Amino acid sequence: MTTNFSILASAKALPTTQVMNQELTQLMPTSDNWIKQRTGIRSRHIATTETTTSLAVSVAQQLLHQSQLAATAIDLIIVATMSPDYLTPATAPQVQAAIGAEQAIAFDINVACAGFVYGMQLVHQYLQPGQTALLIGSETLSRLVDWHDRSTAVLFGDGAGGMLISANPSLMTGRWLGSHYATFGTDGHYLTAGQQPRVNPWSVATDEADDNRWAFQMNGRRVYDFATKQVPRSIEQALMQADLKSSDIKAFVLHQANARIVASVGQKLNLTSAQLPLNIAQYGNTAAASEPILFAEMVAQQQVQRGDKLVFTGFGGGLSVGSAVIEY
Amino acid sequence: MTTNFSILASAKALPTTQVMNQELTQLMPTSDNWIKQRTGIRSRHIATTETTTSLAVSVAQQLLHQSQLAATAIDLIIVATMSPDYLTPATAPQVQAAIGAEQAIAFDINVACAGFVYGMQLVHQYLQPGQTALLIGSETLSRLVDWHDRSTAVLFGDGAGGMLISANPSLMTGRWLGSHYATFGTDGHYLTAGQQPRVNPWSVATDEADDNRWAFQMNGRRVYDFATKQVPRSIEQALMQADLKSSDIKAFVLHQANARIVASVGQKLNLTSAQLPLNIAQYGNTAAASEPILFAEMVAQQQVQRGDKLVFTGFGGGLSVGSAVIEY
Repeated sequence: MTTNFSILASAKALPTTQVMNQELTQLMPTSDNWIKQRTGIRSRHIATTETTTSLAVSVAQQLLHQSQLAATAIDLIIVATMSPDYLTPATAPQVQAAIGAEQAIAFDINVACAGFVYGMQLVHQYLQPGQTALLIGSETLSRLVDWHDRSTAVLFGDGAGGMLISANPSLMTGRWLGSHYATFGTDGHYLTAGQQPRVNPWSVATDEADDNRWAFQMNGRRVYDFATKQVPRSIEQALMQADLKSSDIKAFVLHQANARIVASVGQKLNLTSAQLPLNIAQYGNTAAASEPILFAEMVAQQQVQRGDKLVFTGFGGGLSVGSAVIEY
Repeated sequence: MTTNFSILASAKALPTTQVMNQELTQLMPTSDNWIKQRTGIRSRHIATTETTTSLAVSVAQQLLHQSQLAATAIDLIIVATMSPDYLTPATAPQVQAAIGAEQAIAFDINVACAGFVYGMQLVHQYLQPGQTALLIGSETLSRLVDWHDRSTAVLFGDGAGGMLISANPSLMTGRWLGSHYATFGTDGHYLTAGQQPRVNPWSVATDEADDNRWAFQMNGRRVYDFATKQVPRSIEQALMQADLKSSDIKAFVLHQANARIVASVGQKLNLTSAQLPLNIAQYGNTAAASEPILFAEMVAQQQVQRGDKLVFTGFGGGLSVGSAVIEY
């Protein structure tokens, strides 16, 4: 397994429409202050004409433009999403078609909010020396939200982010240093969304099928407890595998679910605020898109330099957690 | 990358209810003869109380029972599905919870009918020596069918199949010999299903969103042409990588989409009927579940022996194709 893992480019795409907390008070009993204090969120972008596919395609086009790589040089396209436009075709083949990456194989993975960091591991394992991958997290979570449920609706946003990753030693010096992944399926019922219809001429109605649990349902306390316990553990395990200390890490690119979770993780691991970039105020929780959106902004704002060591950590539905340690 | 790839156990699970062609004539203008002649299908199993998750769990339980392995010895669970019960949690974490595979990481992939063979590649790349994976294809396609559309409704069935795969050299001598994967996203619109609702308080209605393309829509001629052209190519490429001829292969475990596609592939590659196992008559097209259901039956009926060389090929939505060559 190669340890070469070079992020050649990073990009994000957000829907045009930005919805402030204040606007949500017209839909449900909530307030700007309550949302800010509990979550750190001030606004989110919401798809009006955009789709999971169109956002992912925008990211892919930017990645190719930045890197000046031909689409036909791409070997692999993985899209991590829990909010696809179709069950078939998956999102990744539609990205492949839109950019003309004829040589790439393309498929979707679903690990909910941990999807992007799971995808990093799959890319790392897949790429042979000289090969190149597009890894994109893209979500339109707005379609999975009950816009009258103030306990969940205020949390989520739409968007996409991604990376162009190469295992070509001659291009760049980025490296894969370590990782840790874990699944807690017994806690999966604490965070559900997108129950699919289950009807056919022979089907028997069940209590569960009658629930119509399309929209997000979350036991916020349990998910918070899970995240604040398992995220530090996952990071510690990944750092151990990389033989690094937390002080060796320039930045921890954490899934942006809640500013209080990020603060708690930072406290438990004794991190500085400079090590904990945050953009949840602007975007809310964008699930698999959250870490690559944040990372694209860090790169654009020159908050990260070649040679910096970084940790990416995703966590959420499943319940799932994962951390990857890389040298940029 | 290890070349060790031992299938320790294989299993299937089908819904109890079996629906014969004749029964479909009460729902739409079709006939038993027409279905049999065009597709080779005589019946299919349809979920009445079963779910994608319950079928996958049944397969996982059988695999553990057969192998006498403790659930805690499993390192990875991948479920390939295009018909999950929920968008989160994914199916694999629910399997993990049901069997108590606490050490396993678990996630879903969506490559439609090619999902199982893509999963084989991911398992092959993931497993370190000594590690063990559950790979399961599970589908309840009956929920994605318009039961009044005779052009698609007669084709699909529900079911699950899977394998317990080990990279432990001391356990068994199975080997990964070669593979080939390709995606044809520009043809993706020839086979669509499961358009997800796209509604939020700010969304703008579009022609596409108004389509409500929940049920399968297929350009049968185009998909047939794709399969009969790209499946032989994929098999030839995979055999070339494995440095084998088609006559070296005991059986080609092809996705069971249509008996005529299987016959055409056999003709183009000059295969014997003994090399082309078929069970579509009983189950119809079960997408990602089709090859592992067929393989579990071949093993149960002793049609395959340790040391036999086999090709697994999946193809379908995406459009996607993939082939894996292994020694059993």
